[in-house]
Formats: sequence, C-alpha cells, structure tokens
Amino acid sequence: MHISELDTPALTVDLDVLERNINNMAALCREIGINLRVHTKTHKAPEIAKMQVAAGSQGITCQKLGEAEAMVDAGLEDILIPYNIVGKRKVRRLTQLVKRAKMTVALDSETTAEGISEQAQADGCSMRVLIEMDTGSRRCGVQSPQAVLELAQKVTNMPGLDFQGIMTYPSNVRAKPFIEEAVDLLSEAGMPINIISGGGTGSEQASKDIGCTETRSGSYVYEGMTRISGSATLNPERCALRMIVTVVSTPTDDRIIIDGGAKTFTSYPPTPYGHVVGHPDIKIHGMSVEHGHIDVSESQHKFRVGERLAVIPLHQGMTSNLHNELVAVRNEQVEAVWQIAGRGKVK
Amino acid sequence: MHISELDTPALTVDLDVLERNINNMAALCREIGINLRVHTKTHKAPEIAKMQVAAGSQGITCQKLGEAEAMVDAGLEDILIPYNIVGKRKVRRLTQLVKRAKMTVALDSETTAEGISEQAQADGCSMRVLIEMDTGSRRCGVQSPQAVLELAQKVTNMPGLDFQGIMTYPSNVRAKPFIEEAVDLLSEAGMPINIISGGGTGSEQASKDIGCTETRSGSYVYEGMTRISGSATLNPERCALRMIVTVVSTPTDDRIIIDGGAKTFTSYPPTPYGHVVGHPDIKIHGMSVEHGHIDVSESQHKFRVGERLAVIPLHQGMTSNLHNELVAVRNEQVEAVWQIAGRGKVK
Repeated sequence: MHISELDTPALTVDLDVLERNINNMAALCREIGINLRVHTKTHKAPEIAKMQVAAGSQGITCQKLGEAEAMVDAGLEDILIPYNIVGKRKVRRLTQLVKRAKMTVALDSETTAEGISEQAQADGCSMRVLIEMDTGSRRCGVQSPQAVLELAQKVTNMPGLDFQGIMTYPSNVRAKPFIEEAVDLLSEAGMPINIISGGGTGSEQASKDIGCTETRSGSYVYEGMTRISGSATLNPERCALRMIVTVVSTPTDDRIIIDGGAKTFTSYPPTPYGHVVGHPDIKIHGMSVEHGHIDVSESQHKFRVGERLAVIPLHQGMTSNLHNELVAVRNEQVEAVWQIAGRGKVK
Repeated sequence: MHISELDTPALTVDLDVLERNINNMAALCREIGINLRVHTKTHKAPEIAKMQVAAGSQGITCQKLGEAEAMVDAGLEDILIPYNIVGKRKVRRLTQLVKRAKMTVALDSETTAEGISEQAQADGCSMRVLIEMDTGSRRCGVQSPQAVLELAQKVTNMPGLDFQGIMTYPSNVRAKPFIEEAVDLLSEAGMPINIISGGGTGSEQASKDIGCTETRSGSYVYEGMTRISGSATLNPERCALRMIVTVVSTPTDDRIIIDGGAKTFTSYPPTPYGHVVGHPDIKIHGMSVEHGHIDVSESQHKFRVGERLAVIPLHQGMTSNLHNELVAVRNEQVEAVWQIAGRGKVK
C-alpha cells in the first residue's frame, strides 16, 4: 500500500532513516567504547527495540514497569528500569518479571529497597539494583556520594537484592566529581561496581568521559526536531518520524487547518510544534485539541482541502505516546503496522 | 475494592460528583431553554455519554469520526461531528455510520460537501449537514454570513445532503451579529434552519442569548481546574476526576517526586499542572516524562516514599486522552472500570 492510501492522521516511520539512525548510534558507541542500553521511551514499540538490540544494544531501558512487561511479552530479555518501583502490587509484578528476563532496577531510598527485598525473598529471586544519584538534575536520586555508599551498603545487606552499580541522568561534566567520589567510596568499601549508567542521546562521549560504562540513549532513534533545531543546519532527512495529515479547511488565504491537534501531536509548546516537510515557509502556530493551525501567509503554494502533508513532530516521544499504531514505511510503501505496545502503560 | 488497593497512577472519577455535575447541567439547560448536546471530548467514555443522555442530553458530540464509531459501537444513537470529514476513506466510514445512528456533520467548504455528497449518493443515504462559521475563533468556518448562505445553497442542491443549520465555536456575544445576519439571509432565501449549534461549558446562557438552539457543553462533566481557578473560590469538591499517584522519591526536604509526569497528566503548562487534594500548600511545579515534581517547601507535612496522593489534573480532557481506563469510584470504593473507548481514535 502506498502512504497516500493511509487514512489520516497516520503516524509513520521511515525504515531507511530509522535503520541508519540505529546503526549510526551503535557504531558511535562502539567507537567511543561505551555500552549502549537504548531507552525505549521515544518509540515504545517492541519491533524497534528488537532492531536496536540486533544492532548492538546490550539490552533496553523502560521507564515504567508496564512498559517493561510489554517488552518482555514481546521477547525482549534484558531490561533496566531506572525508576523507583514502590508499592506491594508493583513490586510483585517486578519479581514476576525477574523470572522471565534479566531485570535491573534503580532506586534511591531504603524504603524502596526494603519493599523490593521483601518481595524478592518471598519469591525466592534476586533483583539487580542500581543506586540512582542526583548529580544536578534535581529529580530523583540520593544527594551525595556518601549517601550512595550508605544506601549501597544497606542494599548489599538486604536479602534478595544484588547491588550492581550506580546511575544518573543526565550525564554531563557537572556529574564527574560526584561520580568519581562515589566510585572511590564504593571501591574503598570493597564494593564491586559493574555498571555506571548514564544518558541520553548526544551525551555518549560525555558519559564515557565521566566514567559511565553504559549510555541510555533514546531519542536518536527518530532524531528529534528539538536536537536538530539546535544545530546549525536543519536536516529533516535525519528525522524518521512523519505524521501524515490532511488539510481539512482553508478558511482564509493566510491560514489552513490540518486534522491533527494537541491530541495527535501533544500540546506542549514551544511552537512551531512540528516541521511540514517540503514547506519551510509555513508554520504550525497553534494546536487546539483536534485541529492544527498553520500560518501559510509566507507561502506561494495554494493549499487545497484534501491535500496531504507530512509533519515531523517536534516532540517525537510525546507524540508517539498518543498513538496505538506506527506505520513502517520504505520508499513511500507501507511495509508493516507496528503496535506501540508500551503506550499508556503508565503503571 | 477500596481505592487504596489500586495500582498507581490510576485515573478515577467520583460518581457522586459526576452525577451531580451531569444533573446540574441538564437542569441548567432546561431552565435556560436550550437543547443540550454534550461534547464527549472531555471523557471519551461511552458509559458517561449514556449517563448524560439519560439525564436529558438530546444526543452527543464527537470531534473525530473514530470517536463517533466507538460511541455508536457502544449504543449511542444521535451524534454530531462538528468537523470537516475529508477524504474517500473517511467519508465512506461516515456513510456507514449513517446506517447505524442519526448522524449530523459540520463542514465549511464546497470540497468537503462534494466528497460527502458523492459517497452518500453511492450508498443511497442522506447526510444531515451544518455549515461551520468562523465567528471570531480563527479556526475553521466560513468567513461571512453571505458565505454561509452560498455554501448552504450549494449543500441544499447536492444530492445526499440534508441542510440542517449552522454551528460555531465558541458562542459569545461577539458572534451575535454574524449569526443573526446568517439567519436572516437563510430565512430570506426560504431555507429552513433547524439547528443553530454553539458551545461549550459556561456559555449556555450566552448561546441562548445569541440565538443558538443547542449547546455542545463538555468540560462541565468533570468540572476542570482551569474554569474553577478562574472563579473566586477554588472548590475541589466540584471536580470529579482524581489521579491517584504514589510518592516514589523524597530526595530533599523541599521536593517530592510522584509516579506520574507528562505522559500521565500531559505536559501542557501553565503550572501547577494539578491540585493535590488536601495539600493546598504544595505545588506540582514540573513534569518530566514519567516523574511529577512537587515543591513541598511550604508544607509542614512529612511526606514518605509510598504515600499516596490524589491529584485533580489541570487539563482533564487532555489527561483522560492518555489513559485506556477510568476507574469509577463512590465513597472511595471502586464500582466499575470503564474503557475510555474514544481515546486514540484520532482518525
């Protein structure tokens, strides 16, 4: 089927670009000498995760337990959840996953560690654990290298837990003193560190430089507009994702309306929300819930109702999260329709 | 099951509040003397749409064709789609729906009208049509009363189309001269107007005053924080929606992290993203993808990892659109789990 036959809005991925992005990142990490553990938050599609693992990623990262379950269901075997898993119901699901895949989980408190330890004991399994550090992002994470050591010692002494190392996000030069001191303290205490996990896309060399053993790069897979806009030249050819939309109204000469709005693209500013391929002179300046508002006053093109446009969404991960299906395309032909199986798995 | 047993984040609706909101709006519209045709965009749940119809709504409104299909599948029988349905594939789906329910559709161009007319003829059915007007919102809609008349005449002359009236959004006093002139022109031309459709929540009296016969009120069903914040007193008791979340990290004394972020609540500013029930002195000041960041520096309460909070989301429709299920609760007991069947039906 040609993409012109797809009903709209249709979320599509160009397989040539996708494969190139995946291979380029795998090659970059090999060259740098850092393990790649791709973050699946951007696509949430098991088929793409499998392509990434086949290209050399040593496993995957899922931010939520429900996403990890979806990935294990699809056959993924090595998953890091860099997120505090809290609550009896959740911890029970986590220990069930340990029976089906190699699971590692990050945590930043004794309370979280105890909850996992208790359930792991009850289920007779062992849970691989990283300590999450706050090296400047002011989100989760213990606040000092000394606190890393103290929590690592507690984890080591809790039955059912297997201390594996440390993690942070993002990994930049500011994190270096924190990480080095934590590593020193852990080494002095005779505690082995197998993993120092950092991320994400764009910080692979920085992660290596500050001592990380792995990078949780994710957004590179589609190559987002945000990162590309920051560089000198906008190059849509590197962006794998396209939303195919239809012009549904041309009410005035300076404005057209497309059939995708905030519930198709996300409503998160800043404008222009996305880049309309082939029309650098038009601008998506507004999103109501189901309408996209485009300013065409600078364009010479005469847009018609029924005309189709391809939009590179500004926020590729947030956009993917709104859709159930991803249409895999090569040379404008549909090759497959993939389930975004991790979508909506917020629990 | 008590709500404390729900895994989090869990999107819940309080049935007592929901029923009160539904009954109050139905009563208000009866009092004003305007038909209510509820907009389902806020909840996208057929069970709630049925409650609204049972309370007196003369039918429902769906912004997208896929949502209308989900509602017809669930047994809803009278649906307005105030949206240009464009493209062969979509128009075919629309005419299929006409065989199963009383359907009305809005349009603003001859091209859209022709597409529907052709398919309606091919399928031997008749499609009820409203003309969409741009009375100031600068979205879709014809630009003048004269343009309403011209398009209405074309629609009337197209086989398979049944001209029913006009629609606008929003309906406020600015729209009055436009609507009155359009009505005059149509009346002079001997064209009957059965429906003048306006919306939404909060503009019921204004809609009546400017001549509308029906109001497409939607957000009243949950009673959003946005509207309530605008009034003199914040009254969370009127808000039916609650996201039950868990505190997963308490990294510093002034900050806690909950297990819901932009993919649970939407990322759309402005802060505070939502109101934490029972804690007026704490503020959700940030959302990363899966973490909600709360400033607790003004609170005397000592938050613990594992503690559960109930959050009224700022954007109730956008939030609902991220979830597959809605947990219906009364007196903190789970009564049902409803599918948000219209979610993700962007096509």
